[in-house]
This record gives sequence, structure tokens and C-alpha cells, in this order.
Amino acid sequence: MSDRPLIGILGGGQLARMMVLAGLPLGLRFRIADPDAGACAGEIASLATLAYSEHEALARFFEGADALTFDFENVPAQTASFLAQCFVVRPSANALAVAQDRLEEKRLFRRLGFATAEFAPVDGADDLPRAISAVGLPALLKTRRLGYDGKGQVRIEEPARAEEAWRAIGSVPALLEAVVPFSAELSLIAVRGVDGSVLCYPPVMNWHHRGILAASLAPAPIAAALAERAQSMARSILSELDYVGVLALELFVRDGELLANEIAPRVHNTGHWTIEGAETSQFENHLRAVLGWPLGAVRPRGHALMINFVGRLPERRAALAVAGLHWHEYGKTPRAGRKLGHATLLAEDPGALARALEQASALFGDRSIAGEVARVLAASAGVR
Amino acid sequence: MSDRPLIGILGGGQLARMMVLAGLPLGLRFRIADPDAGACAGEIASLATLAYSEHEALARFFEGADALTFDFENVPAQTASFLAQCFVVRPSANALAVAQDRLEEKRLFRRLGFATAEFAPVDGADDLPRAISAVGLPALLKTRRLGYDGKGQVRIEEPARAEEAWRAIGSVPALLEAVVPFSAELSLIAVRGVDGSVLCYPPVMNWHHRGILAASLAPAPIAAALAERAQSMARSILSELDYVGVLALELFVRDGELLANEIAPRVHNTGHWTIEGAETSQFENHLRAVLGWPLGAVRPRGHALMINFVGRLPERRAALAVAGLHWHEYGKTPRAGRKLGHATLLAEDPGALARALEQASALFGDRSIAGEVARVLAASAGVR
Repeated sequence: MSDRPLIGILGGGQLARMMVLAGLPLGLRFRIADPDAGACAGEIASLATLAYSEHEALARFFEGADALTFDFENVPAQTASFLAQCFVVRPSANALAVAQDRLEEKRLFRRLGFATAEFAPVDGADDLPRAISAVGLPALLKTRRLGYDGKGQVRIEEPARAEEAWRAIGSVPALLEAVVPFSAELSLIAVRGVDGSVLCYPPVMNWHHRGILAASLAPAPIAAALAERAQSMARSILSELDYVGVLALELFVRDGELLANEIAPRVHNTGHWTIEGAETSQFENHLRAVLGWPLGAVRPRGHALMINFVGRLPERRAALAVAGLHWHEYGKTPRAGRKLGHATLLAEDPGALARALEQASALFGDRSIAGEVARVLAASAGVR
Repeated sequence: MSDRPLIGILGGGQLARMMVLAGLPLGLRFRIADPDAGACAGEIASLATLAYSEHEALARFFEGADALTFDFENVPAQTASFLAQCFVVRPSANALAVAQDRLEEKRLFRRLGFATAEFAPVDGADDLPRAISAVGLPALLKTRRLGYDGKGQVRIEEPARAEEAWRAIGSVPALLEAVVPFSAELSLIAVRGVDGSVLCYPPVMNWHHRGILAASLAPAPIAAALAERAQSMARSILSELDYVGVLALELFVRDGELLANEIAPRVHNTGHWTIEGAETSQFENHLRAVLGWPLGAVRPRGHALMINFVGRLPERRAALAVAGLHWHEYGKTPRAGRKLGHATLLAEDPGALARALEQASALFGDRSIAGEVARVLAASAGVR
């Protein structure tokens, strides 16, 4: 069994769990470190309960690993740097550091010539007036670090409430960002191998509810030129960061133009559709990349709609009666705002997907999103 | 977590392992019993080392299970009967008993009006002359019980060697079976739900090497009428046995006619292609059936070729460079004649599959089989 590569994962949530499920058939073994003893990937892989600050203990636990990677993007970059002294760590600590800091991320986008929402750094409350006059209102005040799923951000409607917002995010270094009147939210999963080869899945269209992803439609029904532009942006980022592994790029469409919003240096919720909807899943491709193996084809297999289960799981048995539905539970205890699972509807064309969606509207936490997806699908089926 | 159904599996080999991999996303939990402490499914599920004769211990281990099922078809039917007193056991002990006895199996086929190879029971050495004159030579002397992968059978070419063959199979109740001059070996995976609904995957064409499956081509390039006849045979068997779960039916084609060869009351090696090649895998559909859930669609997604890895694993990294290749390792220690893994090549049409096969011939234990598959694919692509 000695030729079965060993992968260490920092973070043991559903992303690690799905990596393990994708990696076992590839012959991989896994060790997972997470501060939470109940991390759901521990059901199927060796799990150590360790804080990310316990550098030495992490190094001992991962001893013998062929590569280390991440389920959680907010593992401190210094932990990654420390581990990189004795392990292959992919993506790199530097890529992690850029993605962890909204200001660094925006600077990267600007350096690569991408449009972004207007923004201004806010290092202290004193910076607020200048930032507001530069960016305008309404705007979002976002912590530079540790924000995800709508956490660490507050909307400011009027200047008088700015200081209150600053206190609400914890009086930490932040960014004031214009609220973008977008026509669509897109994202794209790309993977880069050790040899610099890059493959991009098609962009997907996303809907959020209370700051958390609710649904992703793949491929996004957008013009080919826009999809190509998104893929070329992802390629630039991967190359600039000398990145290895899967990266997600989130984008807004405003007046037909793409605005770079943020990157995630890991497999991503908007890529879950690839498990059934693409020739090779994002999880398998991330592992292939991290191990320096050839990447797998990213061609979509039909049209997919991924629906997130947040806070509660719908009735499983009823859902399984929906034609083309694939069910994914993460084995987590239900809690408000927690991602517990997802389902992917797969169909040959947007019309068939729209019909499947009609049977699946009970799966949506917010039914109005089912309606929005249906409208996009109807328009897209009509165009074809 | 209490609403996560618990499945008990008797036998912990690669079939159980792939059931677990399919069942975890469905929210299932698993307990597995196997006499071998190193059974490969134990890597990802709770494994108890128990003999199948330890009825009470098995019942204690499986306590609380929503259903029990099988990875191994030769679990004694009396074990299944015992467990059925306190558990839902699917398929039933009766279905298991029929499939475990070649004579009962053949009688079932005859009762349903299926053609089979000529055969005669051989309960003792004294029966050999009569059996030989009824069946003719060459013929195969097969034990009634415990035969699989070519085990428990000896070929008899001349009457003088018949008694030697009888001793070679262990002087146990047997069947003398004519050697069928078949033009193709087919098999078919079908699944029957608790409500009696049946879904059949398309028949596949198989090649064996030294009695062990080497490759399966799905769908089999055969006339639609032949495929329909095979599916109707499977339906008859499922209904006759009041079967619940996945069943495999193996068939020979002789002079354009289908001969029933044998059934396996479980997920089957010739159904591994369904993981990527069909909308719902045989593993997921078996679990759905066993739990009384709706079955998933069995439509093929393109054309698939499954290649078995027996005794040794090919070089993994080189294999992953083949377009459309999906790799499956079982985590078993290599040993001659042992099934260690498989790969599935997936393509949109037989021509594309033939091109992928050209790059993948190193994966075959016996290269001549790659050549035979290539010839069948070329003929099939030509016909289209």
C-alpha cells in the first residue's frame, strides 16, 4: 500500500469530505486537521483536533504526507509558510495570503487590469469620510480579513451611520466597497497544474440568500465572449500567483462588463455541480494538481443546477423522486446558516432542466430564488 | 444525525466499498461484517471481523440497522434467514439461495422458458457417464455451490478424465455443463424497488481472462431486439424471485439466441461502468432499492469501457493522462488473481472510445483483449 499517496488537509468541513470521496478511488490516503473534533470529514478520514497555530503538532501529524492542501481558506498564511519548510503545500502560502486580504486581492485585480467595484481602504474610523466620498453610498464596509459567506461586512446607507458600522465589524482594518448594481453574479472554477497547464470549467451563474450561496446554474447562460473573458481573467490570476490547484473567481456583470469580486484559493461551493456535471470534478482535479498529476477534462456533461441546503435538509426521499437529481449530504448537525448539503439537477438542455426545477422548488430555502432561476432558464431555452 | 439510515453489509470487499462511497452522499451510515479483518471497505466504514456463521454476534453488530444487504453472494442463505427474523434483509434469503446453487439457478431459467447451455446434475461420480452422454464433450464440471470468477470448475475433454475432474472440484454435488460456442458474452444490471418497479441498464459486452472479467463495453453493440430480450429476461427473474435490489444476469449469445448463464444477487463487476457511464450508478440504485426509496434513472451517459485490474495495478499517473479515463482503486494489497481496481473510459461515441482505447492498451492484463475490444468498437462505429 506504500505507493498510495498521502494528502494532508487543513480544515475538515464538507470541502475536505468531498475531496476524500473523490480521492479514495484515486488510491489516495488522507489525514485531516481541524480545531473542531466534530468536523464532518472525520467520518471518513483520520482527523486530528488541532488549532492552526499548533505548528509543530501539525507537522508531526502530517509526517509522511506527499502534499498538504486546504479545505479552509482562512488557515493563517504563516501556518502554511511554516509547513512549507518540510512539506509540499499547494496552493502556496503566498496565494493564501493574497486571497485572505480583501485589499491585497483588489490590488491584484487592479494590477492585472480588471475592473472592480469602487473601493477605498479604511484602516481606522478616521478614514471613513474620505472613503465615503471616494466610493459613494450605499456601500459595504468589509473587514480585510476573515470574511466569507457574508460574514464581516455591514452595509452603510448614510454617512451618519458609518462609525456604527465600523464598530459592528469589530473596528478592524477594512475596505469600503461600492454596492454594485449587478445584472448577474458569476463565478468560475479553474485549475492549474504543476507544469503551468490551466483548465477552466465554464462560468456559472449564482444566486445568494442572506449572503450565502443558494444556487448555481452551469454553464451560465451568457455570451461566449463574456465566458471567454472570465476564463482569461482566471488564467491571469493563476499565472500571476504561480498557483497550483483549484481556484474560484467570483465576478459581477455590470452593464455587460465583468467586475472581479473575489477569489477563493480552494475548491468552492459554486463548483459542486462538477461532481456530476463535468467530466472530472473540481475535487478530483484539485487533488490531481496538488500531486503534480495530469489534469482531467473539464467539459460539462449537460446542464446542471446546484441547490444549497442551508440550515435544514429537505425531505430526502421526496427529493430523490425528482428525475436527474443527485443528493449530497455532509453528515453535519443542522444549525441555522450552516451548509448541510446540496443537490444537483442534471439535464440535457435548459428546457429539460427547467422542467426538473419545477418538481424541485421545495428544495429551495427561499422559493423566490427558484423563480429567478426559472426565468433565466426560460430565457436561455428560448434563445436556443 | 438520527435520521441518517444505517445499512449493514455482509462482506467488506470492493463492492461494499463502492456502496459506501455511493451511500455517504445520500446521508447513509454503514456497518460492515467480514471474516477478514483487512477487508478493504473497512477503510471507510465500521468493520467487524465476524464469520458468517456467528449469527448472534452479527445480529448484535447490526443492531439498529434499517436494512441489511450483501457484498458477497456466498453468505450462507441460513445466515440471511436468521437475520431476516429481526432485520429487513434485501435481497431475500430465498433469492440468495437460488443464486448460490447452479442447479436451482438453471431450473429457474428453464421454468421461465429461457434457453441455457445443456446441463445435467452430477451428485456423485456414478452420475458422470450419464451426464456426459446427455451433455456431450467438451463440457465444464462445475460445483453447484461456491463457484465464482472461474473457481470451482474444471473442463472435461474426454470421458477418461471425468473422474479426475470430479476429484479436482472436491467430489461435491456438481453440474456438467456444455461448453457454449458463444459469439459474445453479455450481462445486464437490473434493479427492482420495493414497489415492484424495475429499471434495466443496457446490456454490456464482456471479455474474460482466465475466468475473471477483463473488460466490459457499455452499451453492448447489439441489435435493439436482443437488448430488449435480455431486459425482459431480467424482469422475469426479478419478478419471479420477488427481488429487491440490484441483480446481474449473465448471458451468452449463440447463433443470435440468448442463453441464460447465471445470476448474481448483488451489484456486479460488469456494472462498474455505471459510476460514470450512467445517470445513477448501480451502487446508488441498489441502496435506494434496499431502503425502499425511488430508483434513479439508468440512462447511459455516452459509451463506456470498463477495464479490470487483476493481480497488479498499472501505473496510475500515466493512466490519468488518457482522456476520458476514470480511475478506481480498492485499497487492497496486490496478490495474483485479486481484483485491485478498474478504470472506466468514457466517450461520446464508439469512435471516440476506440481512440481512447488506443492510448489505454497498457492497462490490459492481456493485450489481446484490447485488440478484441478494438475490433468490436471498429465494427460498431462503422455500423453507425
